[in-house]
Amino acid sequence: MEQRRDSLAAGVRKDDVYYFKHPAYILSYASCVGKKEGEGPLGHCFDVVGKDDHFGQETWEQAEKVMVQTSLQGAVQKVRLDPGEVGCVLGGDLLNQCVSTSFAVRDFHSRFFGLYGACSTMAESLILGSVLISSGLEGKVLCTASSHFCSAERQYRLPLQYGGQRTPTAQWTATASGSVLLTANGNGRVAVTRAMAGRIYDPGVTDAANMGAAMAQAAFETLRGYFATTQEDPGSYDLIVTGDLAAVGRDIVLELAKEEGIDFKGKYTDCGLLLFDREAQDVHAGASGCGCSAAVLCGYILPEMERGNLRRVLFCGTGALLSPLTTSQGESIPGICHLVCLEVM
Amino acid sequence: MEQRRDSLAAGVRKDDVYYFKHPAYILSYASCVGKKEGEGPLGHCFDVVGKDDHFGQETWEQAEKVMVQTSLQGAVQKVRLDPGEVGCVLGGDLLNQCVSTSFAVRDFHSRFFGLYGACSTMAESLILGSVLISSGLEGKVLCTASSHFCSAERQYRLPLQYGGQRTPTAQWTATASGSVLLTANGNGRVAVTRAMAGRIYDPGVTDAANMGAAMAQAAFETLRGYFATTQEDPGSYDLIVTGDLAAVGRDIVLELAKEEGIDFKGKYTDCGLLLFDREAQDVHAGASGCGCSAAVLCGYILPEMERGNLRRVLFCGTGALLSPLTTSQGESIPGICHLVCLEVM
Repeated sequence: MEQRRDSLAAGVRKDDVYYFKHPAYILSYASCVGKKEGEGPLGHCFDVVGKDDHFGQETWEQAEKVMVQTSLQGAVQKVRLDPGEVGCVLGGDLLNQCVSTSFAVRDFHSRFFGLYGACSTMAESLILGSVLISSGLEGKVLCTASSHFCSAERQYRLPLQYGGQRTPTAQWTATASGSVLLTANGNGRVAVTRAMAGRIYDPGVTDAANMGAAMAQAAFETLRGYFATTQEDPGSYDLIVTGDLAAVGRDIVLELAKEEGIDFKGKYTDCGLLLFDREAQDVHAGASGCGCSAAVLCGYILPEMERGNLRRVLFCGTGALLSPLTTSQGESIPGICHLVCLEVM
Repeated sequence: MEQRRDSLAAGVRKDDVYYFKHPAYILSYASCVGKKEGEGPLGHCFDVVGKDDHFGQETWEQAEKVMVQTSLQGAVQKVRLDPGEVGCVLGGDLLNQCVSTSFAVRDFHSRFFGLYGACSTMAESLILGSVLISSGLEGKVLCTASSHFCSAERQYRLPLQYGGQRTPTAQWTATASGSVLLTANGNGRVAVTRAMAGRIYDPGVTDAANMGAAMAQAAFETLRGYFATTQEDPGSYDLIVTGDLAAVGRDIVLELAKEEGIDFKGKYTDCGLLLFDREAQDVHAGASGCGCSAAVLCGYILPEMERGNLRRVLFCGTGALLSPLTTSQGESIPGICHLVCLEVM
């Protein structure tokens, strides 16, 4: 262990996969969600569930900022740390200029790396946070992502008051925030042992109400590349979960996998299908948003790993890298998928 | 445990400063700017100067995308690499959802970490890119940032056709893109030897036409912290340059430094003052935008370092973490400043 195996010690990369020699351990995590998310199948899992989606604020954007603050502070307070003991925060959200995260971190006052990975942001922040930890440059890092249904609707689609109809492929942006506190030491804890940053794939989908389809190829390509490099298959994992492909995107991933001869053996699902009861909660294809995978990770997956019910998990954040403007200019929707391998050590 | 990690680490952190044991070397870089930038004092420095700001495209956003592609490809082509030999791209821009970068990288097809640091993005990408290189996880990384006057004006302020008046403190968003190719080996080259991610400071400025004032405190605090930690002073550097504080912000930094007893000894300037001739080009306080510091770095600073005219430079990206919505909701403007220490090795 004392010996340097090569001149650069944080880890090695094979193809697109980072193997961390010094994994980043998950010391703590917290989630904060809205009322509808609290009424869903995972409602009992979250640390804070809002009575409404206002969180005591006058605007939806300020409400989202409060959710980010709540999950950041929650992760820190659970382990009785002072925010000053956190080296840096990495994260972002869906709002223009990622303002809910920036304004939340303003009050937190640690060093800050703003990220934009659309709904893949939670996985992106875990990768870069793990790199900072494994490199020895940081001792404690907070990774965060959030979204809010109401701030997203008026920014990406229409004001809520308009009452626009939703198509069957549409997804419901989660009102949710999740924050994960990474640290260098943590025997017995869950750790980020490997990661794979995604490449952008664009299958040519132009319907912004069908983002699951736009992101599905990126998710599949990341998973295919990961299994090829690691020479593992889905059977090596207890759970393989994408971020927010929901029903349409999930089905495309299953179809692509079948064509490729990859058998998920029932291990694969999507956070966008876990967060809501699709029938009872009228969310059409399922959930979406940066906060969807962030809150499902912090509310459900990590607790299940700590309870020993899951030991190896592939957490795959999926992002649709569009803006309303690019869609209105006729552009298709590029997708990306960042993968994080979580293991109980 | 801490000692073992330190001996294996890619670098060490003291206070807020990363010291890279294995610096990231700058293998190549390229810039692409608009017509007005080409007519400025640095006009002869840039690799590509547009005949107009359209770059052959129908929309300003597509024009910005082409600029990003041009600088990414330029950096790679100068050293006769294939884009496939680049491990990943880190970068972003000012557009909602950072679409000019995402769409440019879609065609580049390397792994991608999307960043949002407002106008500090070039420095943020250099820090995280250097961490990836120094950790041994990546061998070649592209760092990029861009902005476009016309896409920024209509998004942040008013459509160009409106012909709105500009206040004296207003800055002119640069139509510019810069990309830097980092690598693990490069004796004799310029290297990123240290870096310091910024904290957010908010002096309470609410005027979105005075962003230099909003960012100045963050710039000063980063520099003050850096000098305190390294026990150096401005005399140790040939140039200390902030990203886009322009005249108003630069003067505030000088004033804060004077109060603190920091003497810049004439070594300090700002990219927003270098890019344009303020009088002749009618840009009021000076230039701004992610592309301002990116293009000044790639067009002027790095070539001057390679020529031996500058040997040690502090490159400090400054970002105003607002959105038009937060300003209209009465919020003040948080600022951040990420610092990168560049040295000829």
